[in-house]
Amino acid sequence: MARIVELDGAGEPDPPAVRHALLDDFRDLSRADRRPDRPGGRGLVLAEGTVVVRRLLASPYPPRALLGVPRRIHELAPELAALDVPAFVTDADTMAEVVGFHLNRGVLASADRAPAPDLDDLLAHATRVAVLEGVNDHENLGSLFRNAAALGVDAVLLAPGCADPLYRRSVRVSMGHVLRVPFVIASWPELTTALRAHGFVLGALTPAGDVAPGALADRERVALLLGAEGPGLSDEALALAEVHVRIPMVPGVDSLNVATAGAVAFHAVGSAGTA
Amino acid sequence: MARIVELDGAGEPDPPAVRHALLDDFRDLSRADRRPDRPGGRGLVLAEGTVVVRRLLASPYPPRALLGVPRRIHELAPELAALDVPAFVTDADTMAEVVGFHLNRGVLASADRAPAPDLDDLLAHATRVAVLEGVNDHENLGSLFRNAAALGVDAVLLAPGCADPLYRRSVRVSMGHVLRVPFVIASWPELTTALRAHGFVLGALTPAGDVAPGALADRERVALLLGAEGPGLSDEALALAEVHVRIPMVPGVDSLNVATAGAVAFHAVGSAGTA
Repeated sequence: MARIVELDGAGEPDPPAVRHALLDDFRDLSRADRRPDRPGGRGLVLAEGTVVVRRLLASPYPPRALLGVPRRIHELAPELAALDVPAFVTDADTMAEVVGFHLNRGVLASADRAPAPDLDDLLAHATRVAVLEGVNDHENLGSLFRNAAALGVDAVLLAPGCADPLYRRSVRVSMGHVLRVPFVIASWPELTTALRAHGFVLGALTPAGDVAPGALADRERVALLLGAEGPGLSDEALALAEVHVRIPMVPGVDSLNVATAGAVAFHAVGSAGTA
Repeated sequence: MARIVELDGAGEPDPPAVRHALLDDFRDLSRADRRPDRPGGRGLVLAEGTVVVRRLLASPYPPRALLGVPRRIHELAPELAALDVPAFVTDADTMAEVVGFHLNRGVLASADRAPAPDLDDLLAHATRVAVLEGVNDHENLGSLFRNAAALGVDAVLLAPGCADPLYRRSVRVSMGHVLRVPFVIASWPELTTALRAHGFVLGALTPAGDVAPGALADRERVALLLGAEGPGLSDEALALAEVHVRIPMVPGVDSLNVATAGAVAFHAVGSAGTA
């Protein structure tokens, strides 16, 4: 069972004798050096809210500690039963004092990072993957993982230029699905070598594409390449793909948000994992 | 040509003799009474940024005034040539003082509301429409209009419980497409009577649906009913629809965001307006 540690109003364990270094996991979260994606960043994985904390506790990331109001920690009792980590319990104001701002979700959990899965192992068991390039917006990245999870994408591969999927905002926007959908960060040569070895057809989403994404639905293994809104995929990425895919759109209208385009394409390509 | 009015540092026209009531269109925009969707709200349509201001100026909404930094007003010179409204020009700080906060898009335009189009006229020329119920989040509503515009939805019908599409944040998130895609606010009986009279099949998106949205692609006229994330469509709405549509998803994963679900369904149903 997680060790319940009650905090007094100053945000320190009560009695002070049990001051706990792990409480630092949650301090001053708005400071830039707490961003795992920045040089000197702490590298911790942070989950906010009961739903996302549950997903963290079920993920491969080793949990370190929790901080929450009594009601939220109580909700998590079944998951905490099997854990040997401290769960700091306090009121919302003390939480805000520790964190540096008010969280309206009432509970946080921290975890260590875990080694990325092996790319070959991952692809051996996948039939639908998303390959992202230059998706440097944490919210778009989080939304892409959420859509990938819902629509049966087995893995997300991060080509150069992507933001860190484990940054707090990505975790939150993904509703915790970045903690469930396996991902690997690699170079284009590594990615394409592995994808080809496993028989994937590479379909690049581009306004200059010549087929709709549904044209790939009957292919056994499909990798959908998506670039950031605005610049789109690099010439290098476009040259690597055998198929250029285009979502039919009204002429003259802005392209879709990248996470939305991903959802449209994931659905159109289909997945055996959905029902 | 729009009348260029230069503002001095106090946010008033220079010379003061030409103080202009229309500058009030842009004052204190963060105040709740400036929200057109609130009781006592001003009811004005506001566009931010060059792209969205252009769409406003090309829309049926009669423009009233502009406020912007010189560079942005200059960019809009072609559109302003045909207009007889004041264009207040000033620096970013004075703009911030008028508006009440810093806008990083450098230009605003205000317009009056316009009468809604006639529902029968609208449906007579439409083959794909979205019907929204209870979509009370301005950002989701804006995203839905953006996706509808891109994917060839001819009109958006707002059943009860939706937010105001013309609220500033919806306009911004839609990238101005709420100003282009015609919409009508009506009750369920009005909507269904008109939709049936024009030969639309009503397809309701629900996790309990029995066909994928692509099953409606060969129907000549399709109305897709979408409810808010979380509650979904009301029992009333579900009972009105002849077809219950479901986007295939991974069991146990949260449903998609409503605007994303809309995009997936709009694409799957198809539109003659896209290419």
